[in-house]
Parts: sequence; structure tokens; C-alpha cells
Amino acid sequence: MTPHTPSPVTLNVELGERSYPIHIGAGLLGGPQWLTPYLAGRQVMVVTNEVVAPHYLERFKAGLPADLEVRELVLPDGEATKTLEHVSRIWDALLEAGFNRRCTLVALGGGVIGDMVGFAAAGYQRGVAFLQVPTTLLSQVDSSVGGKTGVNHPLGKNMIGAFWQPRAVLIDTDTLVTLPPRELSAGLAEVIKYGLIRDADFLAWLEANMAALRALDQAALREAIRRSCALKAEIVAADETEQGVRALLNLGHTFGHAIEAHQGYGNWLHGEAVGTGMLMAAELSRRLGWLSEADVARSRRIVAAAGLPEAAPAAMGVDDFLSRMRLDKKNIDARLRLILLRGLGDACLDDQTPPSLLEALLRDYPRS
Amino acid sequence: MTPHTPSPVTLNVELGERSYPIHIGAGLLGGPQWLTPYLAGRQVMVVTNEVVAPHYLERFKAGLPADLEVRELVLPDGEATKTLEHVSRIWDALLEAGFNRRCTLVALGGGVIGDMVGFAAAGYQRGVAFLQVPTTLLSQVDSSVGGKTGVNHPLGKNMIGAFWQPRAVLIDTDTLVTLPPRELSAGLAEVIKYGLIRDADFLAWLEANMAALRALDQAALREAIRRSCALKAEIVAADETEQGVRALLNLGHTFGHAIEAHQGYGNWLHGEAVGTGMLMAAELSRRLGWLSEADVARSRRIVAAAGLPEAAPAAMGVDDFLSRMRLDKKNIDARLRLILLRGLGDACLDDQTPPSLLEALLRDYPRS
Repeated sequence: MTPHTPSPVTLNVELGERSYPIHIGAGLLGGPQWLTPYLAGRQVMVVTNEVVAPHYLERFKAGLPADLEVRELVLPDGEATKTLEHVSRIWDALLEAGFNRRCTLVALGGGVIGDMVGFAAAGYQRGVAFLQVPTTLLSQVDSSVGGKTGVNHPLGKNMIGAFWQPRAVLIDTDTLVTLPPRELSAGLAEVIKYGLIRDADFLAWLEANMAALRALDQAALREAIRRSCALKAEIVAADETEQGVRALLNLGHTFGHAIEAHQGYGNWLHGEAVGTGMLMAAELSRRLGWLSEADVARSRRIVAAAGLPEAAPAAMGVDDFLSRMRLDKKNIDARLRLILLRGLGDACLDDQTPPSLLEALLRDYPRS
Repeated sequence: MTPHTPSPVTLNVELGERSYPIHIGAGLLGGPQWLTPYLAGRQVMVVTNEVVAPHYLERFKAGLPADLEVRELVLPDGEATKTLEHVSRIWDALLEAGFNRRCTLVALGGGVIGDMVGFAAAGYQRGVAFLQVPTTLLSQVDSSVGGKTGVNHPLGKNMIGAFWQPRAVLIDTDTLVTLPPRELSAGLAEVIKYGLIRDADFLAWLEANMAALRALDQAALREAIRRSCALKAEIVAADETEQGVRALLNLGHTFGHAIEAHQGYGNWLHGEAVGTGMLMAAELSRRLGWLSEADVARSRRIVAAAGLPEAAPAAMGVDDFLSRMRLDKKNIDARLRLILLRGLGDACLDDQTPPSLLEALLRDYPRS
């Protein structure tokens, strides 16, 4: 093994009976030892999309034991695919194939595929096994941990879904070589997020390794993914169904969702909007006296180093933000809650910020 | 309180964090003390159907505290309604009303409404609270306990769904006065089932009280429902997600589903098909040497006393049964499993019955 193909690592997500391993490394796809132990029975359905299939579907299938009944379903690419209608197509395919309760679904692709296949597994015959094989950095560090599955509704993102844990997650860092650089940057936004909310040491590590990550250094990628998943797993284990601390994972997301919704989904990538949203949260935290100017400048430098936008969209006014922020799923009984920073590496849930301070931030924050 | 309005009883279904009470009695509908403690927040959506709404919707709403935001949704009646499209209508209504994660769904109606509303609650924003107010005997003794929710698919019954427990179940035995007698009998099939699989004393009690139950004696109904729910709760607590002993609850269902499917859903009621199916299982058990002729005769007498058919449909041949029995969800990896009786009050899961014995039963069993 050369220095360029570091050995795989395994992280366990501890959730009692629902615990599962995340295997991370270069070249795992196609190695049967990473998958076989987690199959529930002989029936396996691999669900992927039109962009991922040409790159990885055959390589994945080559790693499955020969005596299985393997089906595949290739869906269209993109966030617009994340609908109940497409999940219903997965259910149709499972029933047409005569798949029983011991079947296994495999999600081969990014977050959209993972969310849909997880929800399909949660609802098929009241719950069957599924494996996640995330092929984008965002899905590797975000949806690999936490069991959130679901689809969008015309009236809101992720409004229909379930908490459903995979049996195992297989992350092959080699798959990132085919990922467009803009999507790599979007994934790095979530990686930076873990440092900002919980781990100042990791933030410093990221500052030192950002260039290596963007150059797809496999050892650096493995380490960034491992630490991100470990941080998320620690939070999820403490709060599986998001009653408390798990909300901290939404740092940057209330602002970010407003940007995504205003710009039209897909025009700003989720990670891009989260990157800018985190900087807006940092600036608001500074105005509350919690962060220093130097802290905010450091946050901006690392977001910029990841290749992410710092400024909010030029066309968005204060009301464009506010109207969309109030629709956010976290706002129980119409009270606006924000995730802010008490320090770098120390996020908190806040519902005491005066509306005037928030409005001033939305007015003053730099636009592109 | 007169002898004709017996006091309510409460049964607790023990499922750890997901434990919940079942309140059973005459006249509970409209009593706020039975509901208020279980509301998750201020937003409540009552889902019912066109048959139940004229009888009970206003009475139910009158029992809700005045300061709630109450919405209602009235769906069409019948098994044909139990589709993903109708669950999707519930999700649409919740989103159009701006309901958040602390809302509460109420299922006011029979098993179809309960299954759909439970699945809608399981999938709305990854899970919200729901209350069951079952108004048919079948739903009171069956779907009140166990958390099975879901919808039918063109390729199979209950193929899409989730395990999702209610916060509480409110059973008003008074609602049975508007139930058609044929549906009361269908509910009694499931009541008899509990005696047959698990409780010979209860079976003897049912023999002594069948006339009172069919005459809607409120004290007898309360007792039959309480004991049925308690027996089911005991089994479910031991096996929440149907890995083992819970399969015993399917006594009569493999034969019954074949009858329902062959006759077209709704032509034979589910309970009617289960009643006949239990007698077929009893007869097969006799041929295996497990039941005596007297046991089988006793089973037939109580099924007949409940007003249920004993004979299978005239038009059904051996292959009509076999082809549908092999599609049953319980047949893991194509192995035919049956629930049979080692004795009255002692059911078992069997996968050793020689196919020739089963085929002989299907050929010889009386037809109508």
C-alpha cells in the first residue's frame, strides 16, 4: 500500500440496537468484505441516478456475492427528483420484483438518493434493511449519520420522511474524483460546520489542510470525513430524534434555506448557502458580543479557502429572508430560533435575539 | 351510574418510551379528560370519513379544549381509500394549514382511517403525535394495539407503512350502536381469535357472552375489548416488530387473505374471511392430530354464534387458495408458514406441514 492509498478506517455510530459502522477509505467500492455482512437476505436492490450509474454502478455490483438476486433502479439526477412520486417508483419496483421483508436496499449516490432510498426502506413492508454508499462529500459527511430520510413537498423541503438508520455506510473516497469541484466545496461547508459548532482543534486542522482536501489528497479526505462523521455521531447519539442538541447541526441552515428557497433550489447549492449562512450567524454572534472580529475574520477565511461564497445574493432584501426563515421547521409555534456561536467550536440554540438586531444584520450583511 | 353505563377501564400498553393507555368505556367521546393530556401542542387535525363524520365528528370536537387550532379532513369511506394518494392528501392538508412538528393527528373511524392517519403521522416531518379513536369493533380490538400503520398497493395489501405508536387510544363502546351488525360480527372474529391463540378461559367467557355482545351490552363489550387488547398488548410487547411470536396474531389470516383477494376486497369482510380461515386452520390442526373433533366443533359453534360464515366460497378451488397464499408477506424466502393450533388457546407457527396435507384440506374443506 503506497502513501497515496491510506488504509481504511471504521467508525461506529452508537445507537443501541440500531448501531452501525461507517467504513471510510480509498477504493472500498467493489470489495465484498465491506458489504456482505450487512445484507438482510438474498434480495438486493441498488438504487442510483443517471449521473452516478455510468461511473460506479458496475464497480459496485462487481463487489456483490454471485448468489444474490440483484435488481437496479436508475432515477433522474437532482433535487427535483426528491419527491414522493419517485419513492413510490422504488416501492413499485420492489413489489414488481416480489421482494420480501428480508430484502436490502442500497443507496448509491448523493444526498437525494440517500434520503429517498432510506425513506423507501423505512416504508416498505413497514421497514427493511438499507445500506448507504454515498458518492458526494456532502452526503458522506452529512446524511451518512443521523438516519434522517425523506422527500420534499411543494410546500416545503424534507417535510415528509422518517428516522431510519442504515445497516452500514460505505464511503469510498475515490468516488470524489468524479465530483465537480463546486460540489466538493459545497461538501466542505458542512465539514467546516462541524469544526465551528463543536471542535476548535478540527477547525485548526482544516485551516492547515484545506488545500490538500481540495486537491483530493486521499489521506486528508479520509481524516476530514472520519472526524466529521464522528462529531455528528456524537451529537446524534445524544439526541436521535432532534429534541435538543441535534438542532446545533443546523448552524447556517436557517439563513441558508432562505437563500436556497429565494434563489430557486439548485441555483445556489445547499452547501454554498450553508457556507454563507454560517458567516451570517457568525456576524450576528459578534454583534451579540460572543465572537471577536478576529473570530469572524477567521471564519470568513476558511469559508473562502473552501471555494465558497461569502456574500449573500444581491437581490435578497430583509423581507426575502424573514418571510422564508419563519417557515423553517425548527420554529416551534412560530418562535424564531437560531443557531449561533458563543465561540469558535461552541454553538448554541438561541431564541432571545431581539428581532431588531436580526433585521439590522439582514440589512447590513454584504451582498454579492 | 346505572348498570347499563359501566365505568370506564384503562389498559396500559407497555412499550418502554412508547407506552400508551387505552381508555375503554361507554360515552367517552366528548369527555375532554380523555384527550387533553395527550395533545402534543395546540394544533390538532381530526381525520375521519364520510360515514363516521355525520355521527361522531361534532361530538368528538365538542370534547376538545376551546383554545386549540382544530382542523378536520373528511375522506371517502372504504378499503379502496387506503392508498398513498389519500395519505398524501393528509400531508397536503397539514402543510396547507402550516402545522408544525408539535401537531397532533386524530384518527376518528375504523381500521382504514387508523392505518392511514397513523402512517401520515409517522411520515409528517419525520414523525408527529397521533391519537386513535376507533369506532368499529374490529379497529378497537385490532389496530388499537401494535402500531401497525400503512396503506395498500395495487400489488399487495399493507405493503407500504410504518410501525408508529399512538399517544393514546380512546374507545367509546357507544359508537358500536351505529355499526352495521355484519361489521360487528366481523369484529367478533378477531375477538374469538385472541381466545383461540392464547386464552382458553376467554374463549369460554365468549361462549357464555356471545349473545350479550351481539345485543350490544355495554359491560360485555367493554370486557371483550379490554381482554382482547390486553392479549394483543402482551404479544406485541414481546415482539414489537414481528420477528417471532407476533406472527401468531395472523391465525386464520393466510387462508383469510386468500379468500378476500379471490372474492375481491369488500365482498367478504376481513373479519368474515378470518373467521372462516380460523376454522380452516383448526381443521388442518385436527388432521395433524393436535385438535380433537370436539375442539373443532366448539370452534365452529362459536364462529357461527358470532354470525360469521363457516364455509369457504363455493367458487374457490385449491389453486385459487395456493396461488394467493404464496404471496403472503409472512412467507420469508418463499417458504409457506401457517399459524395452527396445538390446542384451543395455544397457537403455533408451523412450516413443516406437508404440502399434500394442506392441499387435501383445501380440496375437502366445505364450500358455501
